Amino acid sequence: MRINRERLQDSMERLGRIGATPRGGLTRLALTDEDRRGRDLLVEWMRGAGLAVSVDQMGNILGLRPGADALPPVLMGSHADSVPTGGTYDGQLGVLCALEAIRSLNDARTETRHPVGMVIFTNEEGARFQPAMIGSGVMAGKIPLEDAYNARDRDGIRLGDELERIGYLGGEPCVPRPMRAYLELHIEQGPILEEQGLPVGVVEGIVAIAWSRLTLHGVQDHAGPTPMRIRHDALVAAAEVVRGVREISRQVGGDMVSTVGRLDVVPNIPNAIPGRVVMSIDLRDPDDTRITRALGALDRVVRDAARREGVQYELEHYWRVPRTDFHPDVIDAVERAVGSLGCGHRRIFSGAGHDAQYMAAIAPTGMVFVPSKAGRSHCEEEFTALDDIEHGANTLLLAAADLAQPA
Amino acid sequence: MRINRERLQDSMERLGRIGATPRGGLTRLALTDEDRRGRDLLVEWMRGAGLAVSVDQMGNILGLRPGADALPPVLMGSHADSVPTGGTYDGQLGVLCALEAIRSLNDARTETRHPVGMVIFTNEEGARFQPAMIGSGVMAGKIPLEDAYNARDRDGIRLGDELERIGYLGGEPCVPRPMRAYLELHIEQGPILEEQGLPVGVVEGIVAIAWSRLTLHGVQDHAGPTPMRIRHDALVAAAEVVRGVREISRQVGGDMVSTVGRLDVVPNIPNAIPGRVVMSIDLRDPDDTRITRALGALDRVVRDAARREGVQYELEHYWRVPRTDFHPDVIDAVERAVGSLGCGHRRIFSGAGHDAQYMAAIAPTGMVFVPSKAGRSHCEEEFTALDDIEHGANTLLLAAADLAQPA
Repeated sequence: MRINRERLQDSMERLGRIGATPRGGLTRLALTDEDRRGRDLLVEWMRGAGLAVSVDQMGNILGLRPGADALPPVLMGSHADSVPTGGTYDGQLGVLCALEAIRSLNDARTETRHPVGMVIFTNEEGARFQPAMIGSGVMAGKIPLEDAYNARDRDGIRLGDELERIGYLGGEPCVPRPMRAYLELHIEQGPILEEQGLPVGVVEGIVAIAWSRLTLHGVQDHAGPTPMRIRHDALVAAAEVVRGVREISRQVGGDMVSTVGRLDVVPNIPNAIPGRVVMSIDLRDPDDTRITRALGALDRVVRDAARREGVQYELEHYWRVPRTDFHPDVIDAVERAVGSLGCGHRRIFSGAGHDAQYMAAIAPTGMVFVPSKAGRSHCEEEFTALDDIEHGANTLLLAAADLAQPA
Repeated sequence: MRINRERLQDSMERLGRIGATPRGGLTRLALTDEDRRGRDLLVEWMRGAGLAVSVDQMGNILGLRPGADALPPVLMGSHADSVPTGGTYDGQLGVLCALEAIRSLNDARTETRHPVGMVIFTNEEGARFQPAMIGSGVMAGKIPLEDAYNARDRDGIRLGDELERIGYLGGEPCVPRPMRAYLELHIEQGPILEEQGLPVGVVEGIVAIAWSRLTLHGVQDHAGPTPMRIRHDALVAAAEVVRGVREISRQVGGDMVSTVGRLDVVPNIPNAIPGRVVMSIDLRDPDDTRITRALGALDRVVRDAARREGVQYELEHYWRVPRTDFHPDVIDAVERAVGSLGCGHRRIFSGAGHDAQYMAAIAPTGMVFVPSKAGRSHCEEEFTALDDIEHGANTLLLAAADLAQPA
């Protein structure tokens, strides 16, 4: 049993047109009109593959293929939202490989004991609404439903209102359900598989992640007649923090990564001394204790930078996900599947958060990685060769069929 | 002859309501609906004071009170636009003191040989359209009219289209006209008058200003799985430049000020390594040769920061105004006026650009400063005591009447 490469490619091209950017990327932020159109197309395809489709209170879309017995399902899934000027692989490839796996089970008339299904999670990226992975986070009971509904985008628009507006505020409770397993295919988003010439990664777990938000309050003033001696410039302090955050990964060492990805200046005009800066800090490491050390280092970096420039601040450590280890049975099933295909593979740890991270708390979970060209993602240049995708999708198919057991 | 303090205060309060912010400041960006409403009210008041009002091709509003002889006018003026969350004194105080001076000439039935008038310049702040002082710059022949029309705001909207939309695309040519003198009252926007307890500054000139724009091109990528060793982060390079710009004023010394006021990150989300940063650099000094040295230092700061992080860049030095010395006759007239009032005053140099800077190229020009509380401006806390404003407005009135000569 193998997936249909041409059909998968065709679906990738068609879904990739919704929110396509002129330079070959994708902008399909969660719960926008583009997201709605993408969801509508996916639901149409899911129904076409014979799935019973339902939508839950968080807009997560579930489609089930019956099994021979009334047992918990094997679910495959990912997300269909993107970052701004992102790529056409992050998220939607996992959704489309899940769909292709189900279509292939249908083609082969394969019956399984456990039902096999797919799920599309809401707002995985965290680009429009924070925190990231909010749909799977609510399902896993880690984020209260009301908090998710009250998340607001930069324009102050509520997530709950947008769910309703685009017609994906479903009635199914968004709660943990019994699952035989959760499987997610995703691009690696790092350089390792490409550097080693391997088409498939058997993912063992996901690094711990901490997100912080820093607001620096300087004294907004005119950039001309205000002598340097009386300035309290929020952006000068912010620049020290950006440098300090870069240094944290060097100090902590190992595989720690540290990033300031977002930085907004107020009033943000050439001739005013910045009065306020709001910025994000993203810290990741496979080891939870190193995250704790990094957060301590961040506290000191911010305190020192603010003191030097004489500015006030609030530093909120508002989101933290511990290191996730996937389930040995699911890791083994993925490894057996890729082994039976005879293609190169290795075990690997994920540096990016995925819905699988929350799912691991409520189901035996594993992931399949495929390579990212030059390790790049969250950009329009994101690319994975179709040969690699085919190996990855077959791995997903065979692992899911294995876990669902022949009827 | 003195101005009417209550009438001036009433006008300040009424105009200040248009674009008022909840915290007592002002957001009235050039050529927005708020700017249109402010202009409409001012034109109504100017006509009420008996002025013949005309609008030129740049939307500059001119109002003239006839003189006894057909001679070039004495013009008083300033601007009515503000920065975002700016204050209620920067710009509109100069316009309203000019109007109050004319109302006071009317009250006293004072006839002058030269006509006396007032002018309101378009887009002085440069907050919405760059460069700043664009209305007076075109009038002085320093900015081509077509370039001004083609200036675009952040949403890509053309200045020329906005002039037309709000009904202030006038028919009068925007060209130098014969003037007896140009006089502008403005808040100091620095701490000196307040520190010395003086209500009036007799302005001798304006510092040289240079504006640069830097675009840094890094490699946008995912903040998780991208190892530190392969990163090219545009924001890390930008932070080095912010530090370097702060250092430039220290290195050059004297009264040099250097500011990064605007900084925009792309894609600006917590979990993407910044792929692009666009930022402004503002350099000012009374001495043109020190500006040249500072620009050389800036070139080196940017080159080194970009090299260290491995990012590409474009650095454009796109606007430069040399040091402006005001006309000795006008400076003397202002000094005589404030001297006759018997209140404290001193000569002072302006650190901020003003329309007077361009006017000085085509007319004998001078300015009157009033104190800024704590030196602050371009913020909602901007404040000048009414006693000081009264002294400044009387200085403006008496200097204008002096220069226009008794009929």
